Amino acid sequence: MSEGPRLLLLLLLPCIIILSIVRKANAGVTSSYIRHEWPSVDIPFDSPIFAAPRGYNAPQQVHITQGDYDGKAVIISWITPDEPGSNTVKYGLSQKKYEFSAQGDTVQKYKFYNYTSGYIHRCLLDGLQYNSKYYYLLGDGNSSRTFSFRTPPEINPDASYKFGIIGDLGQTFNSLETLNHYKESGAETVLFVGDLSYADQYDDGLDIAVRWDSWGRLAEQSAAYQPWIWTAGNHEIEYFPNLKEVVTFKNFAYRYPTPHLASESSSPLWYAVRRGPAHIIVLSSYSPFVRYTPQWIWLMEEFKKVDRKKTPWLIVLMHAPLYSSNEAHYMEAEGMRIVFESWFVENKVDVVFAGHVHAYERSHRVSGLMNSFEPAPNKSAPIYITVGDGGNQEGLAAKYREPQPDYSAFREASYGHSTLEIKNRTHAIYHWYRNDDGKRVPADSFVFHNQYWAIEKGTVSNMQSS
Amino acid sequence: MSEGPRLLLLLLLPCIIILSIVRKANAGVTSSYIRHEWPSVDIPFDSPIFAAPRGYNAPQQVHITQGDYDGKAVIISWITPDEPGSNTVKYGLSQKKYEFSAQGDTVQKYKFYNYTSGYIHRCLLDGLQYNSKYYYLLGDGNSSRTFSFRTPPEINPDASYKFGIIGDLGQTFNSLETLNHYKESGAETVLFVGDLSYADQYDDGLDIAVRWDSWGRLAEQSAAYQPWIWTAGNHEIEYFPNLKEVVTFKNFAYRYPTPHLASESSSPLWYAVRRGPAHIIVLSSYSPFVRYTPQWIWLMEEFKKVDRKKTPWLIVLMHAPLYSSNEAHYMEAEGMRIVFESWFVENKVDVVFAGHVHAYERSHRVSGLMNSFEPAPNKSAPIYITVGDGGNQEGLAAKYREPQPDYSAFREASYGHSTLEIKNRTHAIYHWYRNDDGKRVPADSFVFHNQYWAIEKGTVSNMQSS
Ligand SMILES: [Fe+2]
Ligand SMILES: [Fe+2]
Repeated sequence: MSEGPRLLLLLLLPCIIILSIVRKANAGVTSSYIRHEWPSVDIPFDSPIFAAPRGYNAPQQVHITQGDYDGKAVIISWITPDEPGSNTVKYGLSQKKYEFSAQGDTVQKYKFYNYTSGYIHRCLLDGLQYNSKYYYLLGDGNSSRTFSFRTPPEINPDASYKFGIIGDLGQTFNSLETLNHYKESGAETVLFVGDLSYADQYDDGLDIAVRWDSWGRLAEQSAAYQPWIWTAGNHEIEYFPNLKEVVTFKNFAYRYPTPHLASESSSPLWYAVRRGPAHIIVLSSYSPFVRYTPQWIWLMEEFKKVDRKKTPWLIVLMHAPLYSSNEAHYMEAEGMRIVFESWFVENKVDVVFAGHVHAYERSHRVSGLMNSFEPAPNKSAPIYITVGDGGNQEGLAAKYREPQPDYSAFREASYGHSTLEIKNRTHAIYHWYRNDDGKRVPADSFVFHNQYWAIEKGTVSNMQSS
Repeated sequence: MSEGPRLLLLLLLPCIIILSIVRKANAGVTSSYIRHEWPSVDIPFDSPIFAAPRGYNAPQQVHITQGDYDGKAVIISWITPDEPGSNTVKYGLSQKKYEFSAQGDTVQKYKFYNYTSGYIHRCLLDGLQYNSKYYYLLGDGNSSRTFSFRTPPEINPDASYKFGIIGDLGQTFNSLETLNHYKESGAETVLFVGDLSYADQYDDGLDIAVRWDSWGRLAEQSAAYQPWIWTAGNHEIEYFPNLKEVVTFKNFAYRYPTPHLASESSSPLWYAVRRGPAHIIVLSSYSPFVRYTPQWIWLMEEFKKVDRKKTPWLIVLMHAPLYSSNEAHYMEAEGMRIVFESWFVENKVDVVFAGHVHAYERSHRVSGLMNSFEPAPNKSAPIYITVGDGGNQEGLAAKYREPQPDYSAFREASYGHSTLEIKNRTHAIYHWYRNDDGKRVPADSFVFHNQYWAIEKGTVSNMQSS
């Protein structure tokens, strides 16, 4: 064993000891620890939490996402309420000096039922330096606002990088708590696994789009400062025949652009980005995915582009989990599992993050494939992690199937978020943090051994069940 | 037993005797009889079979489909090559006297790769009388052309009506033979289960759209004279990133309208019509169908509208078969099976017609549902019939899985078509005809006992496996 991993193992010893307290060898854990501090209702629309920024026509609902395949670009999105205003982003490497500027795309406006949106701006900043802090300014005069973000390290198998994972966030006080806890995590990019605003729950139609606005103002505190990688969930579909709104993903698509063209995808709903040491594939549970469809063809091609020598960490995001032992939505994603699971195994995907089920669960490495609904251990299979516990108005999914199936390693119905801290090409440390009576408490931990470098190449011994 | 069914049984005795010769009791039949008279290549584009009608700007590629929910309307579609020309349909109840006229929708033109379409006309004739022959005239002056069609009987549980079923037709000499045989059948409406032209096989891009034109001219001999109920197949998807053509179903959607709004569907790819004694539900194998998606929500609502007292015969069309024991495309539609099969059983669907597999197969009434890939007999389940044997350029799928699974009643890899002759609320006679060395030969027959009136209501004994 070389020096680096040995040192890492020493550092990880406390973790492993803590884990061994809560976990019997090879037996799954169902944590009885259930916390939800706040009721499952949305924060009132007139709460100061949702307040628009001061100043006439001030930019609001600011958020950024990766803008290219390799992390040298960001897309900045914002909305101005009163008039189009400036469509320019001023930006630079030091505060208050904006040596660069970029012009946004055509400003868009759309209607949804009885609502007319504000002026939606999108601007690509490209050709950025890696590993740098950028400051940016939006808006005009007194109403202008400033933000900043950090670019990722260059694509490199040994780059270290910390991702956060959040799902099914919504806009309750639990959502706010998750956001606040996430901001303490030190993670630099959010892998968001779908179901953003839950605005579709206002199905009289009057408040749907304004609840997209309030969610945009809520999420800004993180999403304006670091990229959120967007996955679409069922609450983004918004098929409302009663309101004559039947174009799916309409509010979402206008507001949350993705860099899908950079990965040659024909739809913003499925795409891939590479970031530091990771290749991240985003799938759409609610778009066509069967053989012959664009998503299927695209994914087959995208897997061919994955180069584990450059990006050892292969991460898949989707909304509906392929493995979950919660009663809620049980086996709902069997269609996608049957179509894509074999590719995940063949390509030795490290981890599949999903949401949808409002609880937390982590699987062992298993595969069921075509022949069985009872998956068997498979070292080439991904770990499946469900992080649908952001804290939306639908509340927690507290009922698990009993007994806990063999594939389930840890499950708990509390709100929270996760982080995946990639250390190098062989190791990553994963945590799930519950929102524990207002505190951020690590409740599940796991050491990922990379499926390519640590396991296939045998660089470290396969001592954990990773 | 009342007089009607007894008489019917007498009439059917020859059928039953023939069947008993080829079939051992309760054992599935794999017919070794394989016929394909013509090679699996498209008819040359310059063949007279594809000739455009004579006359400047003469209407071509004429076809009709049902235009409303209940069969009192048709949509007529045609293309003029040189200029828009007349957009009026003259029609009436006697030849050469056109007492009515209808104005078409806005004439459309579209581009596909290097191709620009002709002028695409669509015209709704509505408020028609049931059970009547209508004559119609398209085009101007010397180039005008006349056609006719029959409207169906009124919605009525005891109306008799004969449907044809064709799938995966293509444009080979086998396709032509299937069409010719179908025209001899006396059936009045085609239930087309997807994969029309196979134009997507011309993937250099140059000939795709012109092969849609040639197919339109080929199918006109039937489709201008009786409605074809269109189901979309994988060959309609036409996702061509290399040609920068990634809008799915583009050629199909411009050319083959469906009456989807009449059944409150948000997409022309899934919809329902009622026709005489039948409620026909058309699904899209390659559109989103999982929970929360528009097709899923629509289908749930559509099943509620089915009234077996008015339309006893509940028929579902889709492209990819849920049960097929052919090696080709084996279990490819498991995604849709897992999502919709339980609804088919709950709603006692009579029959599900599909294509995709280029061979013929008929199942027993079985269901597998969530728990098993080995379906079990289930009297509430539909019969699954695959008629992907229209005769396209891809040839026959001659390899079946051995041994023949219990759910498979009859299978044979020959070209052909089927008919479903509904006699009354309790009985229908089904035939599959192979293209046998140029002749139309009945090769599989089956007496359907209606799932609602004959079986649930017990109007006739359940003596067959129907
Ligand atoms: Fe969800
Ligand atoms: Fe097909």
